[in-house]
Amino acid sequence: MIKTKKEILGKHIVLEISECNNKKLNDVEFVEKIMVKAALTAGLEISDVVFNQFKSQGVTGVVMIAESHLTIHTWPELGYAAVDLFTCSQSFNTFAAVDLIKEKFEAKRTEVEEIKRGTIKENKLSSLIHFC
Amino acid sequence: MIKTKKEILGKHIVLEISECNNKKLNDVEFVEKIMVKAALTAGLEISDVVFNQFKSQGVTGVVMIAESHLTIHTWPELGYAAVDLFTCSQSFNTFAAVDLIKEKFEAKRTEVEEIKRGTIKENKLSSLIHFC
Repeated sequence: MIKTKKEILGKHIVLEISECNNKKLNDVEFVEKIMVKAALTAGLEISDVVFNQFKSQGVTGVVMIAESHLTIHTWPELGYAAVDLFTCSQSFNTFAAVDLIKEKFEAKRTEVEEIKRGTIKENKLSSLIHFC
Repeated sequence: MIKTKKEILGKHIVLEISECNNKKLNDVEFVEKIMVKAALTAGLEISDVVFNQFKSQGVTGVVMIAESHLTIHTWPELGYAAVDLFTCSQSFNTFAAVDLIKEKFEAKRTEVEEIKRGTIKENKLSSLIHFC
């Protein structure tokens, strides 16, 4: 029996950061700066950046990349943020981006989960038209 | 021993749709229309919408909502798209949005995973300043 090797199209890092610096989580300019820096650290080319500050507290933002994205939603009052890093290549250094985010928000607790997205058989790779 | 009940801040649906209609996955206007409709179907209030078409093939897009987002990355040549629905409330009807996406892209195969984001102890709920 010949086993067919499988490849993946995307690597998705689900990052939970807790016990962070509350003020930094509520500073939309700071949050945007760090998320853009994280994308650049990972070697990603940015196409769009959208960040919003809430009147009460909290920041929501996205950094868009070709077939990839980084998102963040912050709850400063709880010292918590939900971060996602979806990249379409194994070669990007997502863990450098994760380390930067943990450090800059001064997270004392983190949880990292990696999800494989778009599992395809190797013999279908030849039909791929676009890579990132 | 008193058990402390835990609540979550976000519900994250990781949706893989395969064997879809290739043309629909490559039509940026159609993809944007469906993702916006999915957000509205789920009862979410949209703040920003960004969608891009690639020269070769494929669409990438995000629908931003307060403390929530919907993203999609499509590979039309493989009939595949990676979709994420992150919502900050249990009350939103994310599965109605999932059904709509599956139906409109004519997905013959789907995988759905639900991730609980931001688990907090019930006694910390009182410190929450913003809900969505």
